[in-house]
Amino acid sequence: MTQLDGGVVPPVCTPLTPERELDVPSLERLSAFLIENGMHGLFVTGSTGEVAYLPDETRYRALEVVAGVAAGQVPVLAGIIDTTTPRVVEHAKAAKAAGADALVATAPFYAPTHPVEFPGHFRAIRAAVDLPLIAYDIPVSVGQKLPTDVVLALAEDGTIDAVKDSSGDLDGLRALIEDPVPVRVFSGSEVLADVGLFLGAHGLVPGLGNVDPAGYRRLYDAAKRGDWATAATEQTRLRTLFRLINVGDGRMGRYSSAIGAFKEGLVARGVIANGTTSTPMIPLDDTERGAVRSRLAEAGLL
Amino acid sequence: MTQLDGGVVPPVCTPLTPERELDVPSLERLSAFLIENGMHGLFVTGSTGEVAYLPDETRYRALEVVAGVAAGQVPVLAGIIDTTTPRVVEHAKAAKAAGADALVATAPFYAPTHPVEFPGHFRAIRAAVDLPLIAYDIPVSVGQKLPTDVVLALAEDGTIDAVKDSSGDLDGLRALIEDPVPVRVFSGSEVLADVGLFLGAHGLVPGLGNVDPAGYRRLYDAAKRGDWATAATEQTRLRTLFRLINVGDGRMGRYSSAIGAFKEGLVARGVIANGTTSTPMIPLDDTERGAVRSRLAEAGLL
Amino acid sequence: MTQLDGGVVPPVCTPLTPERELDVPSLERLSAFLIENGMHGLFVTGSTGEVAYLPDETRYRALEVVAGVAAGQVPVLAGIIDTTTPRVVEHAKAAKAAGADALVATAPFYAPTHPVEFPGHFRAIRAAVDLPLIAYDIPVSVGQKLPTDVVLALAEDGTIDAVKDSSGDLDGLRALIEDPVPVRVFSGSEVLADVGLFLGAHGLVPGLGNVDPAGYRRLYDAAKRGDWATAATEQTRLRTLFRLINVGDGRMGRYSSAIGAFKEGLVARGVIANGTTSTPMIPLDDTERGAVRSRLAEAGLL
Amino acid sequence: MTQLDGGVVPPVCTPLTPERELDVPSLERLSAFLIENGMHGLFVTGSTGEVAYLPDETRYRALEVVAGVAAGQVPVLAGIIDTTTPRVVEHAKAAKAAGADALVATAPFYAPTHPVEFPGHFRAIRAAVDLPLIAYDIPVSVGQKLPTDVVLALAEDGTIDAVKDSSGDLDGLRALIEDPVPVRVFSGSEVLADVGLFLGAHGLVPGLGNVDPAGYRRLYDAAKRGDWATAATEQTRLRTLFRLINVGDGRMGRYSSAIGAFKEGLVARGVIANGTTSTPMIPLDDTERGAVRSRLAEAGLL
Repeated sequence: MTQLDGGVVPPVCTPLTPERELDVPSLERLSAFLIENGMHGLFVTGSTGEVAYLPDETRYRALEVVAGVAAGQVPVLAGIIDTTTPRVVEHAKAAKAAGADALVATAPFYAPTHPVEFPGHFRAIRAAVDLPLIAYDIPVSVGQKLPTDVVLALAEDGTIDAVKDSSGDLDGLRALIEDPVPVRVFSGSEVLADVGLFLGAHGLVPGLGNVDPAGYRRLYDAAKRGDWATAATEQTRLRTLFRLINVGDGRMGRYSSAIGAFKEGLVARGVIANGTTSTPMIPLDDTERGAVRSRLAEAGLL
Repeated sequence: MTQLDGGVVPPVCTPLTPERELDVPSLERLSAFLIENGMHGLFVTGSTGEVAYLPDETRYRALEVVAGVAAGQVPVLAGIIDTTTPRVVEHAKAAKAAGADALVATAPFYAPTHPVEFPGHFRAIRAAVDLPLIAYDIPVSVGQKLPTDVVLALAEDGTIDAVKDSSGDLDGLRALIEDPVPVRVFSGSEVLADVGLFLGAHGLVPGLGNVDPAGYRRLYDAAKRGDWATAATEQTRLRTLFRLINVGDGRMGRYSSAIGAFKEGLVARGVIANGTTSTPMIPLDDTERGAVRSRLAEAGLL
Repeated sequence: MTQLDGGVVPPVCTPLTPERELDVPSLERLSAFLIENGMHGLFVTGSTGEVAYLPDETRYRALEVVAGVAAGQVPVLAGIIDTTTPRVVEHAKAAKAAGADALVATAPFYAPTHPVEFPGHFRAIRAAVDLPLIAYDIPVSVGQKLPTDVVLALAEDGTIDAVKDSSGDLDGLRALIEDPVPVRVFSGSEVLADVGLFLGAHGLVPGLGNVDPAGYRRLYDAAKRGDWATAATEQTRLRTLFRLINVGDGRMGRYSSAIGAFKEGLVARGVIANGTTSTPMIPLDDTERGAVRSRLAEAGLL
Repeated sequence: MTQLDGGVVPPVCTPLTPERELDVPSLERLSAFLIENGMHGLFVTGSTGEVAYLPDETRYRALEVVAGVAAGQVPVLAGIIDTTTPRVVEHAKAAKAAGADALVATAPFYAPTHPVEFPGHFRAIRAAVDLPLIAYDIPVSVGQKLPTDVVLALAEDGTIDAVKDSSGDLDGLRALIEDPVPVRVFSGSEVLADVGLFLGAHGLVPGLGNVDPAGYRRLYDAAKRGDWATAATEQTRLRTLFRLINVGDGRMGRYSSAIGAFKEGLVARGVIANGTTSTPMIPLDDTERGAVRSRLAEAGLL
């Protein structure tokens, strides 16, 4: 299966050994765990997957491993994250070779780029590799937002199939959904997932879905049948659980704390072997790891 | 020669063929042109060199070409620009193998990173590759500034040898220069180069130095002998010339316009074969190319 | 009646004569029009009311006029918008004297102020004037967001009764609503009003409510009875209507265009006498005024 | 004397009694102290003067007091700081009546305003009150920068006479100075004052000039005679002294700390009676006050 019309598609964590090598058995277990818990697809080498920290060979190996486990049961999306077009095109080719069913690319970053140059970027990627292409709107990393008119133009001419919206701009998300040009929209928010679905989003890409995939699946299913009260109740539980990303506050950056907490949660649930994160992220200490486990226990996950 | 104590070190443009392959003969001519015009070093694969657009093999090939021309006459600095530590370390190793005399690295980008994580980043790079390391402070691309205290700590323990300051924060630049911890400071400003030297900066890294290296050398020499009036006169001429970066305003992003203009200037001066820039930059049209040539003529360079 | 538990509370436009004096008869008609169309309260001298443009005497006169029309039928909220505490306290006293039932104050602006100083600001206002106090969170004007913990602390000790949230941060809005500390929350969004109510907000403060109060009342009533489909349909119609704020795009700032369009809409509906806005806003021209009327006609309001 | 062609023009602190009333005798002593120490003009009700905290009557009373002491010896500039044109015009009239020789106005703030609307703002002020008008460029408070082309257009048609640049953009400052349109430029930087003069600025407006007016006068005089080494030495001493603004770091906002430190410095030098600042600024504690005095002692001012 390589089609993805919607659903919950978590950005898969990339387990590492204590020596910071790819931990293949853990990644295999994590992929199986997510599929068993009803995920509609798997998004490999996304921001939550530490893509910005992984050397090329690790990225593609991770993709191969997940694609091997998915084996057509669910589609595998590959983040092809790099600064500009020529570099992203290289990742696109390698990702296709490694088994990706679809590609996820941001606008250019680092090199100051004007929105008038965004269409050329996405069109060159699509022209180079014939796989469904998802535009990834993540201003916190890229430095600017994908304008709604650019997204719609790229959807209209068939360059992109979908948008992953991690911008926090629900008005923009709604504008995409209400426009007559068809484009699927995935919300990247852990804490407003129900709102995204209320607005008509097709799917969710929650980092916290690594730790509690079943919770997001329940939220998604409730929303799809219009049971907003159940969806909101589940969302409230997941919002509380999501506070685990703050365990390292004050001692490290927010991303170090969040990725460390997701991985520690997966260790606690017996899915991966250890919680190592990439350099230069600061590792959680024992107290912080304990706090993650307390959060999981409160949420009924241990 | 591999020492770099100061002087003018332009970030070398990367000439491309019309098919957007590396144009080796043009790069050789450009390297020779810069050395003949008195440059104290050459900075390859910097922002002006379109580093964010170059696939790995093109980066390293460009570096080999420049190092081959330099042949020890002047030091060659290599930008090792990538998102985070593990990826930057790979570039560092490859750059050393390709002939770099020193390395230039930014703070992590794309992945949200807290300044408490910056020291680990630079220390890991230095530990992996034993070459002089220059911290590149470029908030417009990285999204945050290198704090002065972080730079000083890294200089004090020998991790970094110098800073390339493209932050525009002259107060911070002065704080580095006045601090008892010794660290060399290079200003990345084309238009406040004399001010940087007035404040005690050791060197200059002007993108416009590709087009008018002799002008920046005159400015530098005047400043070094305390002849601020001559330095200011030269700076005024270079400020006027620098307006060539705006030829594409309104039709493209500023970076497209600037890189296109630098390359067109080099074509006009007979140094490189053509002005092609990387995808997805928008190329200059005939009118804009004509405007570049007019600027050069006014500045006495044609 | 001076209690305000929720509902639709539009920020009332301030009609001006062509000489830019307060147009009292128009303001009286507008107040009556809003009350007749079911508004639960009236918010005078808010951002939409051009508060930042009105000299003190005009502010208080406008407040007296609206309070006179309201005459206890609905509560009247007064924006007491100024840079810092001592100036805001003076407005608070004058607003009480002019008939306000409640006060709406932002965090300090212009003077760089740290969030640790926000509680002292609101507490001094409340201590000076015993009226219900609403914290107005509007980062686009103030330059920073009211942190959730500050709002909750001020609600817990009785300093503030409610928050008007024009921050666009729905996650923060939800955190306020879900917290055990009771604080009423009003959403300032025209285009995500249904989402705000879906999340549990108590009321709406839509600028567009000047032009179509009945539409927002229908949306609010549908949401209150859990009829989200009807609420969403009304919201879609109002989103389309809201595009009237863009009629002046490219020729003026967005605020000039929005305020001009609201006022022109009220002229078109026969409520106020003319669409004059304050200096230095750029007035709409004939084409732009025509575009406003077309939007109203499409929305069934003419 | 009402002419101001350049020189050192400190933004005068506004001394308060412990009850936060204007301390007239202290303000008289401060004004005399500044004139005796060679200041070329006095800038009243500027940002350093807590203008954003002062009720109208306090602003105008402070202005009368300073104008009374100045008595034509040096020109008195008045900050007319408010959100938009109609409110600023009222301040302009009152400031003229209170004895101002020139007026200092920012672009509109709080109300979102586009640069195309800036010229109408300044022209309306100048049309209303016939006094020299100085445009105050302070993005940290206003939220956006005064574009160079707007400033030049306003200088060319005689609307403004000068610019006070607190933007930190030395490239923009240089562009104003080098342009053929004559406009005087005052730098608001305490720590790059020598650089401003090196670039051709006509004057300085340093908040720290309250505490050490003689130091800034020496710096200015050295720069005017081209003795850059002496200017830089004085600047280095003043940079070190300026660190007194950080005494409250971590416990309060930066502005609370800076204004508190300036006032405490004036108390320590025997110029004003006490260091009270406006609500909601957090007062310095004993340790912080001691740190201010240590800084002054190190700088040779006690």
